Amino acid sequence: MWNLPQTDTVLQVLSLIALAAQAMTAALAAGRRSMDWMGVAMLGCVTALGGGTIRDILLQHYPLVWVQNPSFLALTAIAALLTIPIARLVHRLNMAFLALDAIGLVVFTMAGCDVAWQKQASLPIVIVAGMITGCAGGVLRDILCNEVPLLFRAELYASVSVITGLFYATAFGLKLNDEIWTVLTFALGFALRMLAVRYKWEMPKFEFRSTDQR
Amino acid sequence: MWNLPQTDTVLQVLSLIALAAQAMTAALAAGRRSMDWMGVAMLGCVTALGGGTIRDILLQHYPLVWVQNPSFLALTAIAALLTIPIARLVHRLNMAFLALDAIGLVVFTMAGCDVAWQKQASLPIVIVAGMITGCAGGVLRDILCNEVPLLFRAELYASVSVITGLFYATAFGLKLNDEIWTVLTFALGFALRMLAVRYKWEMPKFEFRSTDQR
Amino acid sequence: MWNLPQTDTVLQVLSLIALAAQAMTAALAAGRRSMDWMGVAMLGCVTALGGGTIRDILLQHYPLVWVQNPSFLALTAIAALLTIPIARLVHRLNMAFLALDAIGLVVFTMAGCDVAWQKQASLPIVIVAGMITGCAGGVLRDILCNEVPLLFRAELYASVSVITGLFYATAFGLKLNDEIWTVLTFALGFALRMLAVRYKWEMPKFEFRSTDQR
Repeated sequence: MWNLPQTDTVLQVLSLIALAAQAMTAALAAGRRSMDWMGVAMLGCVTALGGGTIRDILLQHYPLVWVQNPSFLALTAIAALLTIPIARLVHRLNMAFLALDAIGLVVFTMAGCDVAWQKQASLPIVIVAGMITGCAGGVLRDILCNEVPLLFRAELYASVSVITGLFYATAFGLKLNDEIWTVLTFALGFALRMLAVRYKWEMPKFEFRSTDQR
Repeated sequence: MWNLPQTDTVLQVLSLIALAAQAMTAALAAGRRSMDWMGVAMLGCVTALGGGTIRDILLQHYPLVWVQNPSFLALTAIAALLTIPIARLVHRLNMAFLALDAIGLVVFTMAGCDVAWQKQASLPIVIVAGMITGCAGGVLRDILCNEVPLLFRAELYASVSVITGLFYATAFGLKLNDEIWTVLTFALGFALRMLAVRYKWEMPKFEFRSTDQR
Repeated sequence: MWNLPQTDTVLQVLSLIALAAQAMTAALAAGRRSMDWMGVAMLGCVTALGGGTIRDILLQHYPLVWVQNPSFLALTAIAALLTIPIARLVHRLNMAFLALDAIGLVVFTMAGCDVAWQKQASLPIVIVAGMITGCAGGVLRDILCNEVPLLFRAELYASVSVITGLFYATAFGLKLNDEIWTVLTFALGFALRMLAVRYKWEMPKFEFRSTDQR
């Protein structure tokens, strides 16, 4: 998910909260498909940790974070399971969870950029790695819930991740990747995503109707 | 799938039988979606070999078993294709195939634990590796059949795998991983799974209804 | 996707065209599910580059082609986005796109065989690697579009890839892998696929009806 220096305690704490929040909203999705408790826990883990896992496999960045540190599995599984008795509450706190999810989107995007940067990837790949880290977990969740991924259909989500990554990675190019820049990137990404939620900003859609199937 | 010492001939034979059985039940699933023969063979291979493949990618355990030993591909593809003319029979032998599948669940779980153990993984990862090996092939099958994975919805399956892995891995911790322990683990896992099938044991389900979609 | 010697300029150009064509037909599929522009671009990339990516992960062949050369991402994303204003035209040029897709099928199959051959894989794996390279991108597209993969259900597609790979790989065994053989393989694979399209050749299907679900 991320490999920030241990000093970035704030980002560390934020990402733990965001991981738990993503596992909890995944649990609601599991509940909508009447999954059992084991399924709830597994969907929580896959959703919260899947983006970083896919990024690491694509960049051959081993060992995977949760393999090295299984407490991430415990955190996300437990967060998902705790959602079961308080589902109504989680659902009612929708706006708060959207904010936590936005924090995750931005923090995981930055963490993904960091990993790719450490692997000496080129700038476009740094940004793609950020986007995959921030977004791919939700795609896995939707595949497992048998839905066309929301990411591809609605909301400014992947685009926020790309803009965040572009802004963040500029600092790599300019060699000014210090804490102020991290804070600026976080503020930009978080504000963009919350504005997109608030004002229902969406990308234009491509609608194509025809008779055949492919 | 597994990397047992060559002496474990019984386990080797059991796992070949279980691989074939999983390919055959996958073939029935393919037939329900009117797949063509090529699709039947491919779904058989993915279902039977997919769990071990995902585990190996996550643990960076290369080369993959079927890459090193393509006869596994042949075995599973042929088992799937042979199911076509005898589909009614396979369907009627449902109970026998559930038993063979249970053998696979337990043997593959143990094999997955062994691989993770050899890669010096921590105990939680040993158990997760066992579960992925035993269960993930069926998840791939259900994704390719465009269904919400059965694993997440019903039956004591993943849980049997986890209990089997817990029991089996205890021996690693206690350094008493000898043949008796393997036999005991097998008996425990197989009995649990068959009892779960017989008495329709299920995990509690999490049902959540709401109006919005995510 | 492929790792042909730089001299094979014709194949290089053909595969760039085929990549773009596959991204464009994927864009139509995205349009049928009303994806937004970001989704269109992402589905184009995944469809065109996914087969080679899966092959490389399975064979541990890193860095991935598009990670090393991100212009492939740009090519496929732009091709997908360009499809939006000219969707009707692309749809009407269906036959031309089927031909371009057939070129891709054959060229990517050969490229996949080459990669596996370079990794000292056995002959069956060389052929499987070719098939995965040629076909798996379309499977990912269908999963993301929430459909049972077309590859498993209809048309002579994977089989053409297997025959192409068998024919191509024979040259490896006979040590006669020169340019004439490449041209012959291309002609064979392309002709087979176009004949299959023209005469609606299909594999026999396996239809199985029963009451229970698994």
